[in-house]
Amino acid sequence: MAERTAEAEWKGNFMEGQGRMKFGSGAFDGKYDFRSRFENGAGTNPEELLGAAHAGCFSMALSAGLSKAGYAPKRVHTQARVHLAKQDSGFTINRIDLTSEAEVPGITPEDFQAQAQAAKAGCPVSKALAGVDIHLTAKLV
Amino acid sequence: MAERTAEAEWKGNFMEGQGRMKFGSGAFDGKYDFRSRFENGAGTNPEELLGAAHAGCFSMALSAGLSKAGYAPKRVHTQARVHLAKQDSGFTINRIDLTSEAEVPGITPEDFQAQAQAAKAGCPVSKALAGVDIHLTAKLV
Repeated sequence: MAERTAEAEWKGNFMEGQGRMKFGSGAFDGKYDFRSRFENGAGTNPEELLGAAHAGCFSMALSAGLSKAGYAPKRVHTQARVHLAKQDSGFTINRIDLTSEAEVPGITPEDFQAQAQAAKAGCPVSKALAGVDIHLTAKLV
Repeated sequence: MAERTAEAEWKGNFMEGQGRMKFGSGAFDGKYDFRSRFENGAGTNPEELLGAAHAGCFSMALSAGLSKAGYAPKRVHTQARVHLAKQDSGFTINRIDLTSEAEVPGITPEDFQAQAQAAKAGCPVSKALAGVDIHLTAKLV
């Protein structure tokens, strides 16, 4: 239905090389390297792109579910924390914590939690990330 | 080992609402909405962020594997095409095509293909995306 593109280029070896990641829409083109990925160097890293994609997908999916159920959501704000761990099998993204808060007039806390869980399970990025433990904390504000 | 953050906010309902996605490093903050995600509106969408993360992770992983095997890779360029399909279970990211080309002095085509397949299987973003069919075309240039 929709096809989206992006690209990346890495120049040089693993430790001293330099990379760039770029969105197909042109909205972003930024640098990453060993230090910005595994240490605390300036620049971006694939993990924060994944986190933004997941937070964006979840926030939209929760608004979609709420809209479909007859609510008029005002705002859904979500933070993603992406954990990259060194395991025997190599570096692994083993966990993502989603922390969300939403303003939804007229909803009960129970209905809200059910909608939040449905968005966590059903958003396309959550389903794609089947190799990751996803933990959600959702709060009605 | 490393924890990366990102956030997103969606304001309003599903069809007419407006969203923003933002990296924790501050490298990106951009708009998305129903049209930029499911149609051809201006703005970004979670799928191209996922594609950039995957292309970036794969390019770096291929360089890492080559470096470890004693090669001095000059350049790895990768495009990701992320497919979002409407299925009975809802919108699904069912396939990602990675198309990569690399300059690696002194490597045989067979060794290069083996390294490319290892990077596809082992890069952290590939492992996280266990719910997606990942197809790789790699070319030594």
